[in-house]
Amino acid sequence: MPKLVLLRHGQSQWNLENRFTGWWDSDLSDKGIAEARAAGKLLKDRGFDFDQCFTSVQTRAIRTLHLVLHEMDRLWLPVTKDWHLNERHYGGLTGLNKQEMIDKVGAAQVKIWRRSFDTPPPPLPEDSPYFVGRDRRYSGVDVPASESLKDTIERALPYYQAEIAPRLMQGQRIIVAAHGNSLRALEKHLSKISDDAIVSLEIPTGEPIVYELADDLSVHDRYYLTERS
Amino acid sequence: MPKLVLLRHGQSQWNLENRFTGWWDSDLSDKGIAEARAAGKLLKDRGFDFDQCFTSVQTRAIRTLHLVLHEMDRLWLPVTKDWHLNERHYGGLTGLNKQEMIDKVGAAQVKIWRRSFDTPPPPLPEDSPYFVGRDRRYSGVDVPASESLKDTIERALPYYQAEIAPRLMQGQRIIVAAHGNSLRALEKHLSKISDDAIVSLEIPTGEPIVYELADDLSVHDRYYLTERS
Repeated sequence: MPKLVLLRHGQSQWNLENRFTGWWDSDLSDKGIAEARAAGKLLKDRGFDFDQCFTSVQTRAIRTLHLVLHEMDRLWLPVTKDWHLNERHYGGLTGLNKQEMIDKVGAAQVKIWRRSFDTPPPPLPEDSPYFVGRDRRYSGVDVPASESLKDTIERALPYYQAEIAPRLMQGQRIIVAAHGNSLRALEKHLSKISDDAIVSLEIPTGEPIVYELADDLSVHDRYYLTERS
Repeated sequence: MPKLVLLRHGQSQWNLENRFTGWWDSDLSDKGIAEARAAGKLLKDRGFDFDQCFTSVQTRAIRTLHLVLHEMDRLWLPVTKDWHLNERHYGGLTGLNKQEMIDKVGAAQVKIWRRSFDTPPPPLPEDSPYFVGRDRRYSGVDVPASESLKDTIERALPYYQAEIAPRLMQGQRIIVAAHGNSLRALEKHLSKISDDAIVSLEIPTGEPIVYELADDLSVHDRYYLTERS
């Protein structure tokens, strides 16, 4: 039976500082490292195993995956890293403390940018210290200047369809260690969530979401794997 | 100009305990973790960068590579893991403390097994606690019962020729994080070392060996990257 585990990275330094992160490569905090290890231990204790791993090209997701695989004695598994699984690009909000942002433009505007399905924040200027368009990891990639959640879904979901779904259909067990919004893309598709509802689906850091799938990838069961569950 | 960096994993728990390790999956010791981080910092400080990474399917080499890439802010680089880069399989010596072994069969016999180019140690019995032939990571692999250094070279070198050399010829910069004997295979080939001489070439843990190569992969320069160099 195909099984898909989605895992949002552990807390990052910028999560801790309450800053919009997006494509900025903020590393895990100490708490995030502990969350990732705990997720790996839980997956191992509950008898989970994988055939193939996917992650973004962002340090916080890759390290989360590595910490999980280390706990599981599965560092040897193949890992594919791809920018299509990156976090939503927060454009001009990148680097801003969420409170500062609210003080500056008002909570209502921030909520629109964060919570609208298809309104992107203003673009990130190329002279911003948080501009990543010249980073070698994105050579050949048309790096967005900003993304709505809809934009994020429109690049993450086709990647899932092309690279991940065919493996699931072969019966592979797969883990995707990624980000709040790239995982929303997968959850929206698999659980058939509406545009309005997906913006308020919160995905906690470091808690594995298990999808048990039929051969046609329809959902048998979806649950959080926690100490209690 | 093609550049190849060879890196033997940091000290493992079994290195510390002076036990024959081979294909047993001994993890890094605390010293090994520190060695790997120091190697990554050194590579970064000296301006090294890579296009593609290779490692074995053994935890101590994979973790060494991950620690190096983390220090270099290069966790996003593609990593290929393959058993052909594994350590030499020490057969029936696996798990034995080197001193115990000397007490048991004599230093002369141990030296023959360790230092002969083409004499493998006795085979590892399938009922040994150190037998890895049923490990899923080796499914489809004809796991050896024991290997001479010659045997190790005969599976590591063709892998290098097929997977690594063509990338070097395209001008890629490559790091291989592996093991004393799989790296001897590459050193023997690149530096044209005789069968007799290769058995006594010691490769220290955690010290990057840099090969600067011509387009035809003949060696321009070979040196250890150290704090002093």
